Amino acid sequence: MTSSPPWDLDPQLARDTAAVGDLPLSRVLVSRDASYPWLILVPRRPAVVELIDLTDADQAQVMREIAQVGRVLKAVTACDKLNIAAIGNVVAQLHIHVVARRRGDAAWPKPIWGAGPAHAYAPYALDQFIAMLRRDLEL
Amino acid sequence: MTSSPPWDLDPQLARDTAAVGDLPLSRVLVSRDASYPWLILVPRRPAVVELIDLTDADQAQVMREIAQVGRVLKAVTACDKLNIAAIGNVVAQLHIHVVARRRGDAAWPKPIWGAGPAHAYAPYALDQFIAMLRRDLEL
Repeated sequence: MTSSPPWDLDPQLARDTAAVGDLPLSRVLVSRDASYPWLILVPRRPAVVELIDLTDADQAQVMREIAQVGRVLKAVTACDKLNIAAIGNVVAQLHIHVVARRRGDAAWPKPIWGAGPAHAYAPYALDQFIAMLRRDLEL
Repeated sequence: MTSSPPWDLDPQLARDTAAVGDLPLSRVLVSRDASYPWLILVPRRPAVVELIDLTDADQAQVMREIAQVGRVLKAVTACDKLNIAAIGNVVAQLHIHVVARRRGDAAWPKPIWGAGPAHAYAPYALDQFIAMLRRDLEL
């Protein structure tokens, strides 16, 4: 018998986010920074840093999940633009940002990463956002 | 008879880049900013702004092309990290950045977009970079 090495969410990602749920490949997280509606997909594969570290099948699946999450986030937020990125210069574990941008938001038109201080969600607002996402993602 | 609307490269992308060649779906461009080895994929589909505007088949193809370009860029540059992003807050035409990052580069560990002034390539250096990319991408 062999067993796969375990997958664990990176501790910094865990601290900075709340869980929405699991798609077939990726855990869906929401950033605790209320400055932007900001989701993060983390493929549940151990020791993966780059998109090109995923198998071809997992690359295809993560693209389907990026598109699914992007469509839902756009519908829920009525945003002007989606920003989608795999950067990972600080947190190595592969994670893909899917961010709803609005003209005039705190960083517009610049990217959000490192753009400004985080703002906490108002009470219940994060729970409500997660509930909407779970409904539309059927999680 | 019907004809597809024409595809044209966005003028700002054309100004800021040099062409490497065409993959089955995407034109491969290289940024004229020598601060980072910086490629840009532009799917040759008219009026597409978001990844989710592409058909499912085109989404799968652009992921294959992102991976192909990412592998080649990593091999050519021996970089520490790939940064891959579809942002498009300024230039609407869908384009995907594939950037080779090195610890200690001008923006490290921050993202490169808006990070600092562009630097021109030394004479011949851009041509040499493009030639290496064409060879490894078989273009």
